[in-house]
Amino acid sequence: MTRPVLLYVEFPFLGPFGEALTTMLEPLAHEIAGTTGLRWKIWTENPASQRAGGVYLFDDEEHARRYLAHHTERLHGFGVRDIDARFLEVNKGLSRITASGLSVS
Amino acid sequence: MTRPVLLYVEFPFLGPFGEALTTMLEPLAHEIAGTTGLRWKIWTENPASQRAGGVYLFDDEEHARRYLAHHTERLHGFGVRDIDARFLEVNKGLSRITASGLSVS
Repeated sequence: MTRPVLLYVEFPFLGPFGEALTTMLEPLAHEIAGTTGLRWKIWTENPASQRAGGVYLFDDEEHARRYLAHHTERLHGFGVRDIDARFLEVNKGLSRITASGLSVS
Repeated sequence: MTRPVLLYVEFPFLGPFGEALTTMLEPLAHEIAGTTGLRWKIWTENPASQRAGGVYLFDDEEHARRYLAHHTERLHGFGVRDIDARFLEVNKGLSRITASGLSVS
């Protein structure tokens, strides 16, 4: 049985942030949007603490781990180190109540 | 100017997990669904590492901080300690590409 996996990623990042980051990574975002097994990714950033990352929902753990391996390689290419990555299960019943429409089932 | 804030919460949790947790916390989930300023909450759990938490999207930081204060008090009542809570901004432009329909704007 497969079940959706939430992947949380965070790492030190010097910028750019906000719209400058959007402009720089728009092509990459379109590429990521086509990732097999990915339902969605939210891009997070914290300019104050100079950190960035993402929250992802994948169809299953296999797709999440495959993406993370590829993403880690790409981040290393950007000079990013100390990547904090966490795999979490989703409680579907509770999430359906508080997050309907987020494809958590 | 207000902007949406993503709140990431994680803490040690001995269970129950899965459907048993759903049954136990369904009333709480309905209460949380009515939180002012909350767009959605995804309930996360990791039975293997005995941790649980949530990913939330709020209208702005004020609502996120108010909720966290209340949530922390409730978790303390459950005997939960060592709560890891992170406030993150959302890169709207990039998230619109990879997470359309998630109310990130």
